[in-house]
Amino acid sequence: MPKRSFPLAKVYGLLEPGPVVLLTTARKGQANIMTLSWLTMMEFEPPLIGCVVSGRNYSFEALRLTKECVINIPTVDLAKQVVDVGNSSGRKVDKFGAFGLTPVPASSVGAPLIDECYANLECKVADTRLVNQYNFFILEVLKAWVDPKVKDPRTIHHRGKGVFMVAGETVKLRSRMK
Amino acid sequence: MPKRSFPLAKVYGLLEPGPVVLLTTARKGQANIMTLSWLTMMEFEPPLIGCVVSGRNYSFEALRLTKECVINIPTVDLAKQVVDVGNSSGRKVDKFGAFGLTPVPASSVGAPLIDECYANLECKVADTRLVNQYNFFILEVLKAWVDPKVKDPRTIHHRGKGVFMVAGETVKLRSRMK
Repeated sequence: MPKRSFPLAKVYGLLEPGPVVLLTTARKGQANIMTLSWLTMMEFEPPLIGCVVSGRNYSFEALRLTKECVINIPTVDLAKQVVDVGNSSGRKVDKFGAFGLTPVPASSVGAPLIDECYANLECKVADTRLVNQYNFFILEVLKAWVDPKVKDPRTIHHRGKGVFMVAGETVKLRSRMK
Repeated sequence: MPKRSFPLAKVYGLLEPGPVVLLTTARKGQANIMTLSWLTMMEFEPPLIGCVVSGRNYSFEALRLTKECVINIPTVDLAKQVVDVGNSSGRKVDKFGAFGLTPVPASSVGAPLIDECYANLECKVADTRLVNQYNFFILEVLKAWVDPKVKDPRTIHHRGKGVFMVAGETVKLRSRMK
C-alpha cells in the first residue's frame, strides 16, 4: 500500500478506538509478527503507547532485547491473517511467508512494516519498569505511516475467542475533547 | 437497567474491543464522572486494567485518594452524555444531575455505578508506580455487572475531537486465542 508520513500529534486517533494490531519485531535477521489487543495510548506527543506482550510470546524476547518494534493496524480484509498470526508461533513459522504478508523496511527501526496494514507506527521501547511484573512495555512512536486513501478504516476489535467487532458507522458530535 | 453479576474471568472481553468508558469516583459524598479512552487490559484474572487519568481531571484526586472507582461502559444511545461528561468538570457541575444519569450504589466500592451503562466494573487501585510520571493507574476489578439482554453492545470508540466509530457487525473466526 502506498503510505504517507503521518503527523505524530495525530497518532492517538488511530489507536484510541481500540483496534487489534499486529506487532512486528526483528532479531538476528528474523522478522516476526504477533497479534495484540492489550494496548493503550499514554501520551499525545511524543506519542507513548503502553502494551502487554506476554512472556509466552516469541516476540517478547525480541522486543526486550532489541527495544524496537512496529505497530501495524489491520482492517477487516486481514481478519483471517490476524487470527492465523495469533494462533501460531514465530518459533516454528515464518509468519510473513506463511500468511502472505509483505515486510517493508522501516525508516527508523529494525523491525519491518507490514505493507498490507493501512497504518504503521515505528516504535522504540521507552520504559521497562513494569515489564518484570506485568509484561507491560511503554513505547514511543518515532515515525508513523498511513494510507491516505483510508478515511474510515474498518478495523477489527477483539471480543475474545476469535469473536471480533468490525468498525461500523462514524458519528461526529460537537466536542472540545482532543 | 437490570444487571447480573458477571464472571471476572470474562471481563477482558468487555474492554478488549476498546470502547469509550465513563469512570465514576466519589469523594466526601460527591460523586463524579469522567470520559476515558486510554485504558487497556493487563491481566485476565484477577482482571487488571491500566488507565491514564490526567491530573487536569477533577477525578484524578478522587481516584488517587480513595483508590476506588467504577468503569461503566456506555453504548451509542449515550453518545451525547459521553461527550457532555467529557466537556465539563466535576469542579463545577454535578454530572449525574446535569446529564440525566442515574447513580446506583456499588457492592464493594464507594463510587457509584451508572445505571444507564450496559456494564459496570467495580475497581480498586492496585498499583500507583506510574502515576507520578504518566498518570497511569493499575486497577483490579473486584466485581462486574452486565445487562444480560445486551449481546452485541453498540459501544462507541473515540477517534478524536468528537468523532466516534460505532461498533458494527460481529464476526467469528476459528481461533485458539483467549
